[in-house]
Amino acid sequence: MIYRPACMAFPSAEQRTAVIDLGSNSFRLVVFTAADGWWKRTDEIYEAVRIGAGLGETGELGDEPMQRALHTIEVFAHFCRALDITDVRPVATSAIRDARNGRAFAERALERTGLPVRVLSTAQEALYGHLAAVNSTTISDGAVLDLGGGSLQLVRVRERRPNELSSWPLGAVRTTERFLPDGDAVSRKQLKALRTHVAEELGSAPWLAGSGDRLVGVGGTVRNLASAAQHLAGQPHVGVQGFVITREALGELVDRLAGVPASERGRVPGIKSARADIILAGAAVVQTVLEVGGFAGIEVTEAGLREGAFFESLLPGPDHLFDDVRRDSVLNLARQYRVDRAHTNHVAALALGLFDQLAAQGLHDGDPTERELLWAASMLHDIGMSVDYDDHHKHSRYLILNAGLPGFAPAEVALIAQAARYHRKGQPELGELEPLSLPGDAGRLDRLACLLRLAEDLERPRDQSVRSADVHLQNGAVRLDLHADEGAEVARWAAEREVDLFRRAFGKGLSVAS
Amino acid sequence: MIYRPACMAFPSAEQRTAVIDLGSNSFRLVVFTAADGWWKRTDEIYEAVRIGAGLGETGELGDEPMQRALHTIEVFAHFCRALDITDVRPVATSAIRDARNGRAFAERALERTGLPVRVLSTAQEALYGHLAAVNSTTISDGAVLDLGGGSLQLVRVRERRPNELSSWPLGAVRTTERFLPDGDAVSRKQLKALRTHVAEELGSAPWLAGSGDRLVGVGGTVRNLASAAQHLAGQPHVGVQGFVITREALGELVDRLAGVPASERGRVPGIKSARADIILAGAAVVQTVLEVGGFAGIEVTEAGLREGAFFESLLPGPDHLFDDVRRDSVLNLARQYRVDRAHTNHVAALALGLFDQLAAQGLHDGDPTERELLWAASMLHDIGMSVDYDDHHKHSRYLILNAGLPGFAPAEVALIAQAARYHRKGQPELGELEPLSLPGDAGRLDRLACLLRLAEDLERPRDQSVRSADVHLQNGAVRLDLHADEGAEVARWAAEREVDLFRRAFGKGLSVAS
Repeated sequence: MIYRPACMAFPSAEQRTAVIDLGSNSFRLVVFTAADGWWKRTDEIYEAVRIGAGLGETGELGDEPMQRALHTIEVFAHFCRALDITDVRPVATSAIRDARNGRAFAERALERTGLPVRVLSTAQEALYGHLAAVNSTTISDGAVLDLGGGSLQLVRVRERRPNELSSWPLGAVRTTERFLPDGDAVSRKQLKALRTHVAEELGSAPWLAGSGDRLVGVGGTVRNLASAAQHLAGQPHVGVQGFVITREALGELVDRLAGVPASERGRVPGIKSARADIILAGAAVVQTVLEVGGFAGIEVTEAGLREGAFFESLLPGPDHLFDDVRRDSVLNLARQYRVDRAHTNHVAALALGLFDQLAAQGLHDGDPTERELLWAASMLHDIGMSVDYDDHHKHSRYLILNAGLPGFAPAEVALIAQAARYHRKGQPELGELEPLSLPGDAGRLDRLACLLRLAEDLERPRDQSVRSADVHLQNGAVRLDLHADEGAEVARWAAEREVDLFRRAFGKGLSVAS
Repeated sequence: MIYRPACMAFPSAEQRTAVIDLGSNSFRLVVFTAADGWWKRTDEIYEAVRIGAGLGETGELGDEPMQRALHTIEVFAHFCRALDITDVRPVATSAIRDARNGRAFAERALERTGLPVRVLSTAQEALYGHLAAVNSTTISDGAVLDLGGGSLQLVRVRERRPNELSSWPLGAVRTTERFLPDGDAVSRKQLKALRTHVAEELGSAPWLAGSGDRLVGVGGTVRNLASAAQHLAGQPHVGVQGFVITREALGELVDRLAGVPASERGRVPGIKSARADIILAGAAVVQTVLEVGGFAGIEVTEAGLREGAFFESLLPGPDHLFDDVRRDSVLNLARQYRVDRAHTNHVAALALGLFDQLAAQGLHDGDPTERELLWAASMLHDIGMSVDYDDHHKHSRYLILNAGLPGFAPAEVALIAQAARYHRKGQPELGELEPLSLPGDAGRLDRLACLLRLAEDLERPRDQSVRSADVHLQNGAVRLDLHADEGAEVARWAAEREVDLFRRAFGKGLSVAS
């Protein structure tokens, strides 16, 4: 994260931005707060306005929906005034864009509430989806899919920048109405007709098949499908950020949803009842994009239009990109809590120093991703102290899992959380996060927890008095030589407790000299 | 909590106190931090020094144990210097007090480390147990039991002050050695001999039988027994603070522990393996105190000697008492998080106003304890925002359950936590905390959650613009009249969503006028 002094990014005083998302189904106001190197969502209100009700038949926003909508925008405007938020960004999508009287409605909203509603073009909407995706995943080349109620947007991504954009009226609500109108009895034929239509439409984006092997998905339908796929796979529910729905899992889900009446789809674990009527068509649209584009799966992000609009405000132009999504995610989370930064940074430096030296001695592979996870766990190990000192290692784990770390895969977040969990004591294990993990993760966790714990021991006095430690391999055992003016007493006393874990993680004895 | 300006209580800058507890089995350093109206434990290190090893045979501290002990005190001293903690309070108990060379050891520790070890008399030790108990429970009259490895202390409490003190060498280690030396086969006869001896010894405290009906228990043995009793009762594990071990549950536990060899007692759910060898004798001692004193049960507190020593530093003399343990617990927790205090206080005022007016209209009983729980939930409802905005209601619940609220019974903490959990949405339920609850708690929770949610709605703009609400009962339904200069739009919009929950909680319709 680079602090460009001349821009508003990460102001030192707390600064709030309200993004108002005037969607076809619901209106939503989200407040983001940014300060001192961190940002997060701090408030949200919504109302199920359904401004699009009846639009399909008349091509216009109806009187009653407009009254509801204006009343809600008025409430939102009051809210922003009461909270003294001056950076308010109201954006309208599909329904208001497509209605003949959409612009007129936006003008009435301005007159009545003072809020300048910006009606997004399909391209502008797609660009916000793109911004959300590239700032919450590590995608560099590939495509971003944004599926709403009204429209489907696809953006080709090259070196993180938007390269091609396409939009179709293939949202989950529209395709349901057109292809699966009688939800209670969906036939194979109907589903096939839907897929055939979508595949034909996608023909207008010939770039899709050659866009690479990564597809990132944005929007409520995709998030909900991910949640259902997690259930199917028997995985713990720690949010869907970074979860990949494979083509196989999606196929299984479509079969399962098509096998029950629409009224019962909300009972499929993970599916929200409010989406039960449109989820099947949405799933079939995503499935078709995977097939046409030749993608093995779709990687889900929790960020969307609203985050996109916020990132535009937070991050300096012209591209509005985080420098390094993974690094910035970790720093963002670490800075939200009152941790001792000098201590945290020093623990990270000590842990990485041990990691590098042990790799040089051939005691592990020195995998750069593992190194990055060690850094992340070091930066976050103490955030649970903001909950309570007792069990703060467990609280750190809870905070990491609940806040999430955009840019990291679920298996990686699990390793970071478990390393923090075991930074004080106990025998490291993946526990209930095991179903998320990859082959080799148990050994990875042992190494991460062991090095984090050793670094924490060396920095037990919390005063950076142990400046560094040299690793020596001698007679088949590792000796740590500490460089310290003082404080080495406490550090050695603490580090000598890790002999068993060190042997388990690196297969060697351990001694500490000073 | 009264801020007396002339004392060091609750300094505005963070101030740290290290209490060093030199016990018979382990040495423990605990750091407490106090600032700006809150205090909490912020660090802890310990070493299993076992300075009492061999003391029983020789009456003296052995050379090796003393070397280990001096080395550990040295490490602790380094630690305090590194952390720049100047308020360090090292206290020694049973082993060092009873050893012939205990004072000499304390002098050597001073010479070598600069730390002035204070060897506590049995009375001084008992007084710290008393201070811990009266500042972490609502006991006003009754007795405090403090059971360590070496000694048993009992303090009679009158109007929160210590009234009588007695001490016996009846700690869990000593009674085990004397009465149950062959742990693997404990006979009824041995147990009976232990109980008879304890009962005879307690004869020297004739005040015990007439001390009232409340007995508060302090110390690791009692905490561990509570944890086992929670398991036996199938209760969720949310800490043992305020948990009452009934005489029946304790009897059952003693039978269970006596029925298995000592080596297997650590497998009884809730019993720590490190205590497996001494827990049975400890349980029998507590059991005898209940019988002799005529107590129906023992109420457990997590505070102990170390907290007692810290309270002496934190709270102004001569009595070192919190004014109101329950109130101060809530304020202490609320102040540890960055909540918007003006908002929180106003939500509490609105919620209590609604509570009182609805009671005046005969819509509920106006129970003062329920009112206090509503205040507590109001003060704490937003603390989860420090974790993450998303699901902050769930995080508030997590923080409340994990931090605990000394002075409240587990059933009350559960109600406060669940009311916070449901302060935004969802149908209130006790969920997995159900086993903790008392008859009527489901209805209590409905009322608490409903009023908290209404108050939050009225204060949705977070600017105190809705000053108050008047309750009118009209045609069998409740109408709220809001007093506000502005902001009533948002408040009314929000409050109108609570119609269903209000009907469930108070059996009436609800409308909001402004």
